[in-house]
Amino acid sequence: MSHNTFGHLFRVTTWGESHGPALGCVVDGCPPLLPITAEEIQVYLDQRKPGQNKFTTQRREPDQVKILSGVMVDEDGVQRTTGTPISLMIENTDQRSKDYSEIKERYRPGHADYAYDAKYGIRDYRGGGRSSARETAARVAAGGLARKVIPNILIRGALVQMGPHKINRDNWDWNEVHNNPFFCPDAEAAKFFEEYLDGIRKDGSSIGAVIEVVAEHVPVGLGAPLYGKLDQDLASAMMSINAVKGVEIGNGFEAACLTGEENADEMRMGEDGKPEFLSNQAGGVLGGISSGAPVVVRFAVKPTSSILTPRKSITRSGEEVDVMTKGRHDPCVGIRAVPVGEAMMACVLADHVLRDRGQCGER
Amino acid sequence: MSHNTFGHLFRVTTWGESHGPALGCVVDGCPPLLPITAEEIQVYLDQRKPGQNKFTTQRREPDQVKILSGVMVDEDGVQRTTGTPISLMIENTDQRSKDYSEIKERYRPGHADYAYDAKYGIRDYRGGGRSSARETAARVAAGGLARKVIPNILIRGALVQMGPHKINRDNWDWNEVHNNPFFCPDAEAAKFFEEYLDGIRKDGSSIGAVIEVVAEHVPVGLGAPLYGKLDQDLASAMMSINAVKGVEIGNGFEAACLTGEENADEMRMGEDGKPEFLSNQAGGVLGGISSGAPVVVRFAVKPTSSILTPRKSITRSGEEVDVMTKGRHDPCVGIRAVPVGEAMMACVLADHVLRDRGQCGER
Amino acid sequence: MSHNTFGHLFRVTTWGESHGPALGCVVDGCPPLLPITAEEIQVYLDQRKPGQNKFTTQRREPDQVKILSGVMVDEDGVQRTTGTPISLMIENTDQRSKDYSEIKERYRPGHADYAYDAKYGIRDYRGGGRSSARETAARVAAGGLARKVIPNILIRGALVQMGPHKINRDNWDWNEVHNNPFFCPDAEAAKFFEEYLDGIRKDGSSIGAVIEVVAEHVPVGLGAPLYGKLDQDLASAMMSINAVKGVEIGNGFEAACLTGEENADEMRMGEDGKPEFLSNQAGGVLGGISSGAPVVVRFAVKPTSSILTPRKSITRSGEEVDVMTKGRHDPCVGIRAVPVGEAMMACVLADHVLRDRGQCGER
Amino acid sequence: MSHNTFGHLFRVTTWGESHGPALGCVVDGCPPLLPITAEEIQVYLDQRKPGQNKFTTQRREPDQVKILSGVMVDEDGVQRTTGTPISLMIENTDQRSKDYSEIKERYRPGHADYAYDAKYGIRDYRGGGRSSARETAARVAAGGLARKVIPNILIRGALVQMGPHKINRDNWDWNEVHNNPFFCPDAEAAKFFEEYLDGIRKDGSSIGAVIEVVAEHVPVGLGAPLYGKLDQDLASAMMSINAVKGVEIGNGFEAACLTGEENADEMRMGEDGKPEFLSNQAGGVLGGISSGAPVVVRFAVKPTSSILTPRKSITRSGEEVDVMTKGRHDPCVGIRAVPVGEAMMACVLADHVLRDRGQCGER
Repeated sequence: MSHNTFGHLFRVTTWGESHGPALGCVVDGCPPLLPITAEEIQVYLDQRKPGQNKFTTQRREPDQVKILSGVMVDEDGVQRTTGTPISLMIENTDQRSKDYSEIKERYRPGHADYAYDAKYGIRDYRGGGRSSARETAARVAAGGLARKVIPNILIRGALVQMGPHKINRDNWDWNEVHNNPFFCPDAEAAKFFEEYLDGIRKDGSSIGAVIEVVAEHVPVGLGAPLYGKLDQDLASAMMSINAVKGVEIGNGFEAACLTGEENADEMRMGEDGKPEFLSNQAGGVLGGISSGAPVVVRFAVKPTSSILTPRKSITRSGEEVDVMTKGRHDPCVGIRAVPVGEAMMACVLADHVLRDRGQCGER
Repeated sequence: MSHNTFGHLFRVTTWGESHGPALGCVVDGCPPLLPITAEEIQVYLDQRKPGQNKFTTQRREPDQVKILSGVMVDEDGVQRTTGTPISLMIENTDQRSKDYSEIKERYRPGHADYAYDAKYGIRDYRGGGRSSARETAARVAAGGLARKVIPNILIRGALVQMGPHKINRDNWDWNEVHNNPFFCPDAEAAKFFEEYLDGIRKDGSSIGAVIEVVAEHVPVGLGAPLYGKLDQDLASAMMSINAVKGVEIGNGFEAACLTGEENADEMRMGEDGKPEFLSNQAGGVLGGISSGAPVVVRFAVKPTSSILTPRKSITRSGEEVDVMTKGRHDPCVGIRAVPVGEAMMACVLADHVLRDRGQCGER
Repeated sequence: MSHNTFGHLFRVTTWGESHGPALGCVVDGCPPLLPITAEEIQVYLDQRKPGQNKFTTQRREPDQVKILSGVMVDEDGVQRTTGTPISLMIENTDQRSKDYSEIKERYRPGHADYAYDAKYGIRDYRGGGRSSARETAARVAAGGLARKVIPNILIRGALVQMGPHKINRDNWDWNEVHNNPFFCPDAEAAKFFEEYLDGIRKDGSSIGAVIEVVAEHVPVGLGAPLYGKLDQDLASAMMSINAVKGVEIGNGFEAACLTGEENADEMRMGEDGKPEFLSNQAGGVLGGISSGAPVVVRFAVKPTSSILTPRKSITRSGEEVDVMTKGRHDPCVGIRAVPVGEAMMACVLADHVLRDRGQCGER
Repeated sequence: MSHNTFGHLFRVTTWGESHGPALGCVVDGCPPLLPITAEEIQVYLDQRKPGQNKFTTQRREPDQVKILSGVMVDEDGVQRTTGTPISLMIENTDQRSKDYSEIKERYRPGHADYAYDAKYGIRDYRGGGRSSARETAARVAAGGLARKVIPNILIRGALVQMGPHKINRDNWDWNEVHNNPFFCPDAEAAKFFEEYLDGIRKDGSSIGAVIEVVAEHVPVGLGAPLYGKLDQDLASAMMSINAVKGVEIGNGFEAACLTGEENADEMRMGEDGKPEFLSNQAGGVLGGISSGAPVVVRFAVKPTSSILTPRKSITRSGEEVDVMTKGRHDPCVGIRAVPVGEAMMACVLADHVLRDRGQCGER
């Protein structure tokens, strides 16, 4: 089967291929009366938009979002959600399908070509079809809506590693994130990445990355244990992003190395009279439920599989061939995964705010 | 809300607390006519069973599973599934609720106590209630059934790291896994872990671990992109296991460090005339769809939060206290997560075999 | 597939066969802190219980419900829901499997025998297996819990037609419902039914019935249009009950005969300052959303298919035979469908109260 | 919440309002490789299209469907489904929003106005917004796709009653259905309806109707008991159609009047060596599973609530007013419900074919 919906009460269904006339999503279950404009959603799409610098694909897409349903201008001239499904559409404008004719019959190593063909017996080879990262534009649009559902939660993402090079966390400055083309919070590292990635780009190669997304002011109590745990749904959401190979919550794999004494976050009463954690190894989730501490997720993005170096592969008919992928590609797809990761975090949290309200009432 | 079902066509709903009269699960959607006995399921429960050596909780539970519905003995005397829901029940016998009276009002650091109370306004403090790892017995039982749905797929798990100590993968021998109390495939490492963990146990401390689960002979084509991707569902399933903080598919976080040339698995035609991968960085999943290569998942388990060293915490009423957790606990909960990880892998694969058949027909 | 769960936030999964060791259900998503005892649930099970008079099957089942999870006694000694899944179990005690050996190979006309065999290739012939109306005990138990979620809604059911004989609605008295073995609100009709049904019973025949379930004090705004409409979910719930062949909301099929003038319910402001309907043709639902008027559902129950008169049928192997069904059966299964219909109404409304709260907040 | 998806493996999500820029649906889970063109879907939309004769609203909508995703032209020039989500869009062209300014503040009796406002606190009053029957265009489009999944099943609908006037079933001729503006299979009755409905139309009144949908050549074994029964899902689907107040399977409410002898369908072996039913009281469903006999569903449609006669109502602010509904309306909405009923039948059957294949394999 295919399964293109995620979320339970805040439900997002995406559709569209890289080279079809358009792509989009339907967001169902969005609460009514939220003020929303296409421009507000556009802000996030512009962050993900291709063609903005030499480190992203040179495909030029305005990625202009249209709201086709689910909103109405009220008496005060404010456009608001009506509680009905919201259809968002982004037209494709810069498809160059001929670019892909060469790989129509050839499976590009690392790409989903072979797997799609094996599953469905047919594959939209134009730009990767449904498996293209272009689909993430629909996620980012949905994320823009989701943020409206949870206006008090602050969601920010950043690139924290490129290739083997981790940023220096002591340099972390959220203000730097939009000062460089890498969403990197460490200005010094960003400078290094500029040169590093340029070299990779010129080689026609590519490189992986690690992205971190942090949500602050998350209310305590979100999560639907045991099989709709908050961390579980975040892992699922992040792993669904193209090219992601690993997901961590809080200290993640580091937790395996620690003793119980080192790992457990101690508690005290805060100055505001509320419980407070003295550390955040858990990444804001205990037993699958948000603890009130910042929710911290990291995910690893593999290097773009489209590279200029020829690699061994086969054709649809079983011929052994060499494949090199020309065309317009990001040397580090991890970069543009930052706004996508933020969007997925927003959607999952919006969903859980509504789910929690459903069972346990307003907080 | 709470959400205690996973799977789409092979659906598992679990129920039960650590100190209630019983726990269990209902498996819905299991194909009819599969031969199955309680004894076959028991094999897996026995692997997870507590009290088997000094490295697991000394709680003594026979963990005897009963099949309450969904099967019938046919004319040849073979008990078979009938296609209707299968209810599995395991009675609790060795609850000692007084052990927990002390922490009734106190939140144990690292545990779900505070989060459950904050969410639900009530918390079954006896042995962790619903958040106890005892619930994983129900998963293991469901996994026993799931294996029957996919008899040709070989699923095996192993502990590959304890604390900072990784096994030597050159020593990997699946036959060793059941020769030591750690499910460790490296006999040498197992010997080391014996001493290492004994030290931790005697200190009343605990330690984390990394578990790897491998599925071989997985048919190509499983997975329901874009939001029911095979790797996504595996990430979700593994992250739902108690104490898990990170999940990787294939090379996982290592992928972030690699170039496209290093990371992409090249293809050739195999001797059997079928496509073959020359490496398996991808861990058997491309574009969310199984590629035919072994599916490889790793997950990090944090150290048991129950330790003898006092830690700062608070009570339900906001008093600041120190908490130490007596009682019977595993010094390394990661160990018993091995059969649980296998069970989750089995359930996810069984589900996807049925889902794929639903959309794309029999393979 | 089989699909044994209903509801979205208040989710009920039932399991069990007529002649297995037990049957039951898991209720997931029930809000925490609701006071609940097995005795309160038992009240409803006792209404559905077989063997209470000559008009119901003579199978003797105490139908004693046990709560296996999801509750805890609080400090005041009150047993409360904890927000985790609630497992309810009813043991079968009076199975007489030999009664059914005769029809093991024969398909009973009107029963699900042939259809189950054709679908699953195996069929639990003992007492109808999973297709037995015994399963409705689990629904009634779940309904008892559901009522706790919506304590202010009054749900009552009644038999309003037996065979071609409708009750006189002018005689409607809810107090009469528990004064006769038919749940009939018209004392006069009940007297007639006594004699009428006795004749049918003695002939070894059976007869159909129509049941009406009314919910009062339903808050306005319940329902999840367009595909989770309140009336749609009620139609689905009632049609899922054994032997039901038709469902109506409000005036139902009568609406087809009316003009717009006759059918539309006019509105005025009530004395309490709230909107009020001057009639209730709509049965309390407009556009799939509750209007605040009583929700009225009726459903038709076919006659018991188990009759003493031989009917033409075939065997599993395709032999043509005559089948008559001995054993212990209700001459009018519609009667015991009354508490089942009430339970389904309670479950659907509880679900929608939670769903509505999830999207639109507390009312 | 709102809930705008139906189906389990063949999943349809609809979106759009009467007076928005467009409406449409996303069909997810459609098997790959099915040949499909927009023209084939258009055939069914043209049957539902408004403005075709004096008995339907004079709104003029071309209702031209576009396929935005999920298909690709293969090497032989045949456009085929790719197994990914199929987005269908229909642009609105003839909205006249001023028509509705009058009823912006007034609740039209019988319409969903009050209920939507009460639920969401906001209501798209233009042409009924989301509650408009215009949404059914999206269902019909989805139904066109669904038929491609089940090419061997013949699905046909007909109007069998208008007001109190039932057709003569002895005159039933499927060929007549498209010879009159009522989808009426009885030529004689159609002639009568012409005059009858014209009178109602001239009076500015409206009338109800009963629609029957029949599916032939349905394979035995479809249905997912106990809570995804085929008849249950059909009841749910039909009840979700605008203005539907009752649903019957087979003999429906008539079953309540019958004895077990009269009601049970006897079986014999057919000439083709397959089991055969000697009657079809059950309407092709036993125990929630298709029996191989034609599946027969009937549903009652209430009269259009938009009438010229003033009716008592209230405004948003609680003023008591009289409301009459001008604008362009169908005097008998039941008529255009025929292609909608067929579409829902097609979607439900397509879904169950895939679900059944998922659990029980190819038939």
